[in-house]
Amino acid sequence: MYSTHQFIAECYFASRPEMCPYPFQLKTTTTVACSRSFQEDRIWLNGKEEDINQPRLQSCLREIRRLARKRRSDGEGGVDLAGLSHKVHICSVNNFPTAAGLASSAAGYACLVYTLARVMGVEGELSAVARQGSGSACRSMYGGFVQWIMGQREDGKDSVAQQVEPETHWPELRILVLVVSAERKPVGSTSGMQTSVETSSLLKHRSDSVVPARMKEMIDAVHRKDFAAFAELTMKDSNQFHAICLDTYPPIFYLNDVSRHIINLVHHYNQHYREARVAYTFDAGPNAVIYTLQQHVDEFLQVVKHFFPPETNGGQFVKGLPVASTTLTEELRQAIGMEPMVKGISYIISTKAGPGPCIVEEPSQHLLGSDGLPKESA
Amino acid sequence: MYSTHQFIAECYFASRPEMCPYPFQLKTTTTVACSRSFQEDRIWLNGKEEDINQPRLQSCLREIRRLARKRRSDGEGGVDLAGLSHKVHICSVNNFPTAAGLASSAAGYACLVYTLARVMGVEGELSAVARQGSGSACRSMYGGFVQWIMGQREDGKDSVAQQVEPETHWPELRILVLVVSAERKPVGSTSGMQTSVETSSLLKHRSDSVVPARMKEMIDAVHRKDFAAFAELTMKDSNQFHAICLDTYPPIFYLNDVSRHIINLVHHYNQHYREARVAYTFDAGPNAVIYTLQQHVDEFLQVVKHFFPPETNGGQFVKGLPVASTTLTEELRQAIGMEPMVKGISYIISTKAGPGPCIVEEPSQHLLGSDGLPKESA
Repeated sequence: MYSTHQFIAECYFASRPEMCPYPFQLKTTTTVACSRSFQEDRIWLNGKEEDINQPRLQSCLREIRRLARKRRSDGEGGVDLAGLSHKVHICSVNNFPTAAGLASSAAGYACLVYTLARVMGVEGELSAVARQGSGSACRSMYGGFVQWIMGQREDGKDSVAQQVEPETHWPELRILVLVVSAERKPVGSTSGMQTSVETSSLLKHRSDSVVPARMKEMIDAVHRKDFAAFAELTMKDSNQFHAICLDTYPPIFYLNDVSRHIINLVHHYNQHYREARVAYTFDAGPNAVIYTLQQHVDEFLQVVKHFFPPETNGGQFVKGLPVASTTLTEELRQAIGMEPMVKGISYIISTKAGPGPCIVEEPSQHLLGSDGLPKESA
Repeated sequence: MYSTHQFIAECYFASRPEMCPYPFQLKTTTTVACSRSFQEDRIWLNGKEEDINQPRLQSCLREIRRLARKRRSDGEGGVDLAGLSHKVHICSVNNFPTAAGLASSAAGYACLVYTLARVMGVEGELSAVARQGSGSACRSMYGGFVQWIMGQREDGKDSVAQQVEPETHWPELRILVLVVSAERKPVGSTSGMQTSVETSSLLKHRSDSVVPARMKEMIDAVHRKDFAAFAELTMKDSNQFHAICLDTYPPIFYLNDVSRHIINLVHHYNQHYREARVAYTFDAGPNAVIYTLQQHVDEFLQVVKHFFPPETNGGQFVKGLPVASTTLTEELRQAIGMEPMVKGISYIISTKAGPGPCIVEEPSQHLLGSDGLPKESA
């Protein structure tokens, strides 16, 4: 006998200061099953079995089991007694490239922790647990605009996420993910950040002085729905994050020539209109996350298509929320004045801020079959 | 009647902290003539007449003329009285790409100020004058290892250059200039640095805290000829300079994918030997300046040739000081473990620290003919 619970957690994009909307179209789906018949804990990621003994995975499993035992000994209801002694099978898929700076590990760990907690009957604040899997996973535990509070404690236990505004707060805000490359990034973001802490002489100044001030301004910009302020903070902070990566020794590079081309394109576009209509942010990879308002989406997509002509291999260039075709004016094209870069962008995901983790009720969508093993399609 | 004086000043490469050796093979040659028959001040750069009214050029001209008049009124000898009222013709050529982050304006202004001063009979400390043309030109007034002192005064008049060691101090030190692209850089380095001062929130911390400490360590490393310390400081400081460029708003990019490939190559090479045998530094452009010791030059050049296979168009790939061919071991090739990048580097200049400006006595090498106009070859 076994039980299956499945949840979908949306992936989250980090615009530092650590607060930003989830994109709606990027999903991690995770199914967790536990059964007396399982011999050991196992995990499958994107169709491939992975090592369950990875330290960060073990931290999350151990912590959820500890919380479940605590609940049982506290006599709280709703605890699945069986789940505590049984082994688990975990199956998780992302519908977007993994390890390409699209926060796949954040989405993955958030979804995993949320799902495990449901299976084991754990409730309450889970972002501190998710953070043990991947720092930024704590943010992915909520929808809409989320801030990651730095905390004061040495052990980091007060470093948790808080929702600033739900996803319904700013419906005009749109997100375009420009997928530059699905190649695996050379440095995982966790080890990269650790090296930065050890070697960058600028990081301390950034975290002590720059980020706290920007965080206040960012929360204020989101509350007021002030796109220009939101955009400038987002871009400056993305750039400063990558500056710190470069100040790390040996240096870490996530941006490539295509990323830089996108950055220049956004600045030229904004300069033409003399206002920040579009913003970029880059996480630990070359892919750009673009923010803009509903009324500018169609035009800006035309601009992107013109300056990054898609390969004509029949694949869909823009996925996700529908966009309308418009004509790019000659004036705008000349004002931007850059050389088109063929094949720079492989595809675009058109999306907007999404909700936090949700339960998938429909059994046909669960990833583990009745034998506790991944279905063919998972 | 007119007089011609000609001088050659060597170009200089900025390894921040602001001290580094001149490469010997990169030259700016400048001829200045003054004559009663000249109707106006004129300047030719690399074969093309340019606007003499550029503010920075005018600053240098005005300042040298002021110093010359001062010398004359102080009754000091050697002043060419005629030159003071006459117009000048200036002709200058670089034997390396201009405006590609190879400090061409530094070499150019240093050479111009030195030559003008000779023509007008001005002597003494000229680096403060050269600095008015291009900040880093003050360093190019000396050979060997030069530091640029920040100074305390608001007007910057105490911001001058000082020789730390002459070019003969460390003869084993070699320089390889990897010329990535001769394209003009998108942002001139002077305007770029001004925008950084206005917008980078990390720059002040760098200039107040990081640079002064590194400067002391760098001078010490040069005195001791400690290559490992020199190399690490050079690389860290180059990276931090480019980090500040990225923290500028809008961001400034000088490094491209080829530059990053070179940086990774150097770190992989050093990691293989578990010591810093090679260092890179990048100025305001994608071209790398590599420092290494004599005993490693041949091997490292083989590594560069392997991972950046030259185009087989008959051009010379390595120019300047001769290098010996060696065989790259399979072990080293595998340890570096990168994909070769075809056409990444167009050519290499093999050189070493050179002297400061020198006078060219040989009239056949002067750039202006007896009519005061550029010779066909200039």
